[in-house]
Amino acid sequence: MSTPTDALQRLRRVHEDAVLSALRSAGALSRAQLTERTGLSRTTLFAIVSDLMERGAVIETEAAPAEPRGRGRPATLVSLNPAAGLLVGLDLGRGRVRLAVANAAHQVVATASAGLPEGAGPLEQAEAAVRLVREVAAERGIGLGALEAVGLGLVGVVDEHVPAVTLTGPGAPASPASREPGPGAARVPARYLPLVLRVAEEFGVRVAVDNNARLAALAEATWGVARPARDMVYVRWSVGVGGGFLAGGRLLRGAHGAGGELGHVSLDPAGPACHCGGRGCLEGRIGGQRLLDACAARGVALESLDALVTAAQDRVPAVCAVVAEAAADLGRVLAGTVTQLDPSLVVVGGELAALGSLVLDPIRDAISGQALPRSPRQIEVTQADLGVNASAMGAIALLLHEEPSIPAHLRPAIP
Amino acid sequence: MSTPTDALQRLRRVHEDAVLSALRSAGALSRAQLTERTGLSRTTLFAIVSDLMERGAVIETEAAPAEPRGRGRPATLVSLNPAAGLLVGLDLGRGRVRLAVANAAHQVVATASAGLPEGAGPLEQAEAAVRLVREVAAERGIGLGALEAVGLGLVGVVDEHVPAVTLTGPGAPASPASREPGPGAARVPARYLPLVLRVAEEFGVRVAVDNNARLAALAEATWGVARPARDMVYVRWSVGVGGGFLAGGRLLRGAHGAGGELGHVSLDPAGPACHCGGRGCLEGRIGGQRLLDACAARGVALESLDALVTAAQDRVPAVCAVVAEAAADLGRVLAGTVTQLDPSLVVVGGELAALGSLVLDPIRDAISGQALPRSPRQIEVTQADLGVNASAMGAIALLLHEEPSIPAHLRPAIP
Repeated sequence: MSTPTDALQRLRRVHEDAVLSALRSAGALSRAQLTERTGLSRTTLFAIVSDLMERGAVIETEAAPAEPRGRGRPATLVSLNPAAGLLVGLDLGRGRVRLAVANAAHQVVATASAGLPEGAGPLEQAEAAVRLVREVAAERGIGLGALEAVGLGLVGVVDEHVPAVTLTGPGAPASPASREPGPGAARVPARYLPLVLRVAEEFGVRVAVDNNARLAALAEATWGVARPARDMVYVRWSVGVGGGFLAGGRLLRGAHGAGGELGHVSLDPAGPACHCGGRGCLEGRIGGQRLLDACAARGVALESLDALVTAAQDRVPAVCAVVAEAAADLGRVLAGTVTQLDPSLVVVGGELAALGSLVLDPIRDAISGQALPRSPRQIEVTQADLGVNASAMGAIALLLHEEPSIPAHLRPAIP
Repeated sequence: MSTPTDALQRLRRVHEDAVLSALRSAGALSRAQLTERTGLSRTTLFAIVSDLMERGAVIETEAAPAEPRGRGRPATLVSLNPAAGLLVGLDLGRGRVRLAVANAAHQVVATASAGLPEGAGPLEQAEAAVRLVREVAAERGIGLGALEAVGLGLVGVVDEHVPAVTLTGPGAPASPASREPGPGAARVPARYLPLVLRVAEEFGVRVAVDNNARLAALAEATWGVARPARDMVYVRWSVGVGGGFLAGGRLLRGAHGAGGELGHVSLDPAGPACHCGGRGCLEGRIGGQRLLDACAARGVALESLDALVTAAQDRVPAVCAVVAEAAADLGRVLAGTVTQLDPSLVVVGGELAALGSLVLDPIRDAISGQALPRSPRQIEVTQADLGVNASAMGAIALLLHEEPSIPAHLRPAIP
C-alpha cells in the first residue's frame, strides 16, 4: 500500500514531469499558459517553476512585448535550460576505461577510451576516468558546466554494500546524509566507494553505478537490438561471461545487486573448482582463457581471444569445434534461463558474438530443444547491435531509465 | 521516453490517487478542502471528483450545517463509497475451485472451496466457480452489488494468447473493443477465454487472470512470509512443480506469460522424456507421481501424496531418502535460479513444504554450495506461510498489485 508521503512525492514528481513535458513540446510558455496546460493551481505551478529554476532545469526569458501592458512590464516566459542536460557514461572495464557523452536530447555526441594499467586500483581508475572526460571535453568543445549526472559501469560481483552516493545539487558535498539510495538504485561495493566519491567530487553531480554487463544489456534495450523488447536475456561472452536481464521493461538487479549473473551458474555441481568457490561454473567451461587452453590442447596455439575469433572465422576445424561445444554449454544454461524468465529475445554480445551462426545456432538448438517444446513460442536469439561502447552507453541509459522523461538530477530528493 | 499522452494519463491517475488517498486518511472532505490538500486547481479537482462519482468510487454527503450560510445551502462533503471495493479471488485448480473474498480494506473476509469433476472443461469450471461465489455470498450475507473485480488463477502453461478481458464498468458487455490489455496484464490462453467471458458476464466486472503458482507467490509477498521481500523465488512442490518470481517488487510474468516456470527446467538434456516434450525436466524427477513410484520401487507402496508426506513425517527411511534426493535435485535448479536472480528469499510451498528441514536443508545446501561461495549473501530459504487458499488470495492481490492504492476498476481506461 502506498503511504500518504509516497503519494505526495509521486504527485510532486508527476507535476514536474507535466511542466517539463509541456515546455519540451511547446518551447517557451508563460506561467499562466503552464497553469492552463497542466491543470495545476497557480500556487502549485509557481512553486514548481521556482524549484525547477533553482535547480537550473528551466530558465526565464522576457517575451517580446506584443501589446502595451498596464504596468509597462513585459510578460516572462519559462523554457527548458538549453545549457543543461549533459550526461556522461563511464565503463571501468578490465584494462580500459570507456566514455560516452549524451546531450539533453539523449543522443550520444562523443565516445572515447583510454588504457588502464594492469591491476589498477579504484583511485587510479577514477583518475584515468576524470582525465579522459576532461580531455574529451576540451578537444571537442563540450562545456562540462552543463553536466547533469555521471553513470559508472563497474566490473565484478557486488559483495558488500553501502548506500549509493547521490549528490543532488551542483557542487553539493558528498555528505553521508546525501548518500541515501533512491528506490531501486544500485548500491556500491565498498571497494569502489573511493572511486565513486572521487568522480562525484570532481564533477559535483549525481553519480549512479551498476554492473557493466547489466549496463550493456540496458544499452541494447535503449539504443540497440533489444529496443522493442520488455523481457530480454543478454549474455556477454568474452574473457568472462556476464549477463543482464530485462523483466517487464526493467533491469533485474536482484536483492544484492547480483541479478543477471550467468557466468557462475553451475553446469555440474561435481565439476572442476571455479575461482568463485563454486564447481562446474559456466565461465570455467567457456570463458576466454578456457577456450584458448582447449584450442592449445588440440594443437592450435593462439595468443588472444581476438586471434581465436579470427581463427574461427577462418574456419580452422579444431577452433570451430571448441567454440561450438562451448556454445552448446552456454545454450544449456540459457535454456534454463529462458524456461524460467520467458523472454521474447536472447541477445549475445561480447567478442564471441562476432562468430554469428557458429555461436548462435548451438544456442538456438539448446533453447528450442530444452526450453520450447512445451509451448511453441517465438524467441529470437540474435547478436548484440552495439559495439565496445555498449556499457558506457548503458551507464547513460541508467541515468534515464527508471523515469526516462525526467533527467535524474531534476527529481526531488527522496527524504 | 514517455509521450505527452503518457504524461497526461499518468498525471490524471496520480491526481485521482491523491484525491482517494486524502479521502482514505481524512474520511469526508469538502471540495475546497480537497483542493487545498492536493494542490490541484479547482477546475481539475471538480472534474476528477465528478468522474470518481460517476464510477461509483466516491459519494457525496451533506455536512451538518455548522453555521448559517448565505444561500442557505449546506456544504456537501465527498467520501469513499463504503458500498464499493469487494474483491473476489478464484483459484481454478486441478479437481477443486477455491474462493477468497476481500473487502475494501483488502482484508480477506471469506474463503471456501468446492470439488470439480475429473477433467472438467473451462465452462464447467466457470459454472462451479459462479455457483460457489453465489452460495458463499448468500450464506454469509455478502452483497455482490459491491463487487469491483474478480481475479482468476489458472493452471498450466500459457501456450496461446488473446488480449485480456477488461470490462471497465458494471454490466459492461464483453465487446472485443474492451479487450485491450493494460500494461503488464496477463493474457488469457484461448482455451480459457470462454471461462473468463462467462465469469465476466455473470458479475459484470473486470476480470484479471494469471497462473495460479505465480499467484501463490504474489499472495506470499502480499500477506505471507515474503512480505518484506522485493526479490523472491517461490516454488510450489506438489503433484506438479510450479513457481513464481518477484523481481524488484513486481511479479515476473515474461514475454508470453510463462515466467516463473521451474518444473520444466532440464537437469539433464539427455535424460528421460518429459510430458512437456523436453528431457530430464525437474518435474519428471520430483513431481508427486514420480515420488510415489520411487517409494514403490523401494518397497513402500503409498496411495497418495498426503500418505507420502505422513510417511516421511513418520521417518520411514526409504521415503525420507526419496524426498531428500528429490529436494537435492530441486536445490540444484534453485541454485541456478538464485545465481541468476539474486533474491533475498526462497519460499517453498505446496504439500512437500510441510516436511520442513527434510526438504529445506538439501535446498539450503545446494544454494550455499553452488550459488553463494562467490559472494557471501544472506539468502533465506523458508516454508510458505499461507495454506491451500494461497492462489485464491493471490488472485485478489493481483487486482491490487500493480497500483495498490487504486482499486483496478477506478483506473481510467487506457486508450
